[in-house]
Amino acid sequence: MKEIMCFIRANKVNATKLALAEGGFPAFTCRKCLGRGKKSVDAELLNTVLAAGELPLNDIGEHLTEATRLIAKRFFTLIVQDGEVRKAVDIVIEANRTGNPGDGRIFVLPILEAYTVRSGEATSEAY
Amino acid sequence: MKEIMCFIRANKVNATKLALAEGGFPAFTCRKCLGRGKKSVDAELLNTVLAAGELPLNDIGEHLTEATRLIAKRFFTLIVQDGEVRKAVDIVIEANRTGNPGDGRIFVLPILEAYTVRSGEATSEAY
Amino acid sequence: MKEIMCFIRANKVNATKLALAEGGFPAFTCRKCLGRGKKSVDAELLNTVLAAGELPLNDIGEHLTEATRLIAKRFFTLIVQDGEVRKAVDIVIEANRTGNPGDGRIFVLPILEAYTVRSGEATSEAY
Repeated sequence: MKEIMCFIRANKVNATKLALAEGGFPAFTCRKCLGRGKKSVDAELLNTVLAAGELPLNDIGEHLTEATRLIAKRFFTLIVQDGEVRKAVDIVIEANRTGNPGDGRIFVLPILEAYTVRSGEATSEAY
Repeated sequence: MKEIMCFIRANKVNATKLALAEGGFPAFTCRKCLGRGKKSVDAELLNTVLAAGELPLNDIGEHLTEATRLIAKRFFTLIVQDGEVRKAVDIVIEANRTGNPGDGRIFVLPILEAYTVRSGEATSEAY
Repeated sequence: MKEIMCFIRANKVNATKLALAEGGFPAFTCRKCLGRGKKSVDAELLNTVLAAGELPLNDIGEHLTEATRLIAKRFFTLIVQDGEVRKAVDIVIEANRTGNPGDGRIFVLPILEAYTVRSGEATSEAY
């Protein structure tokens, strides 16, 4: 069993949860977080993009991030069987990929044990 | 040392933190999250239950969850010594078990290193 | 690759994010959480400290924590390369260490895989 942590854009929550539910991953949690990636402002690129009118205001805000500014993001957690990691990752990627910086990151962690509170017992089922 | 992640009902926070503190686990964090399990609506069961008046409104809301509706949950994190995992898990289960779907899930992850900020040093103590 | 979880004081968010960005760790998330450590009230110490006027009101509140009271904390998550764990931990410690109980805890977890949503590909880069 593995934990999949997904840091994604706040405006991709609905698309992500629909895609996961339809793809056979019915169980997950979503939390708010603030975050940033390695990107800082590329002034030249920014001016080019602004001049071309290619980006909506939302995205411009994201590109304007200075070194210590944090952006509202969403953080999905899924627990899946070992053999389903790549399938779940692909679903999240497809629902979130725009090709722009800030699309997000996905990390996979090991789960050693799982328990169902309702039954009070250890389980080998991810959900 | 292990991390214990517990996804529980929002109305079980007080019972859980009391049970943990009394059971010898004084250190933990609690966060809000939105989540869902594998359950979707069973219309027949729902009508039976509604007709019988067996569920308070809160629980009905939880059963009405459609495929992509997320429910406000709470997420507890505890770090415990390896030998105390089962004890902590049992305390969380006992405080949260109602026997109904939505009671929650508990997952255990490995912790490789721990540090105490106050002393600035690595530690083998969970708290 | 490793995940570094840092539970710190709410009033240390700015110092921490500045220190991380300047120290070469540009990517992280910050979340709100409620938490407590093992400390409960030491009445004698508290009276001594109050009499001496040595603590601002904020810190007094933190010392007054009874068994089940939770304190607003912040929770930083960083993903770093294996060889950079100690450097990142030291930066967080230096930015957060006051020498008082409640300075926080840092835990390190293994990351098995990482993906960049923008490219859709697995990556060996932490950010």
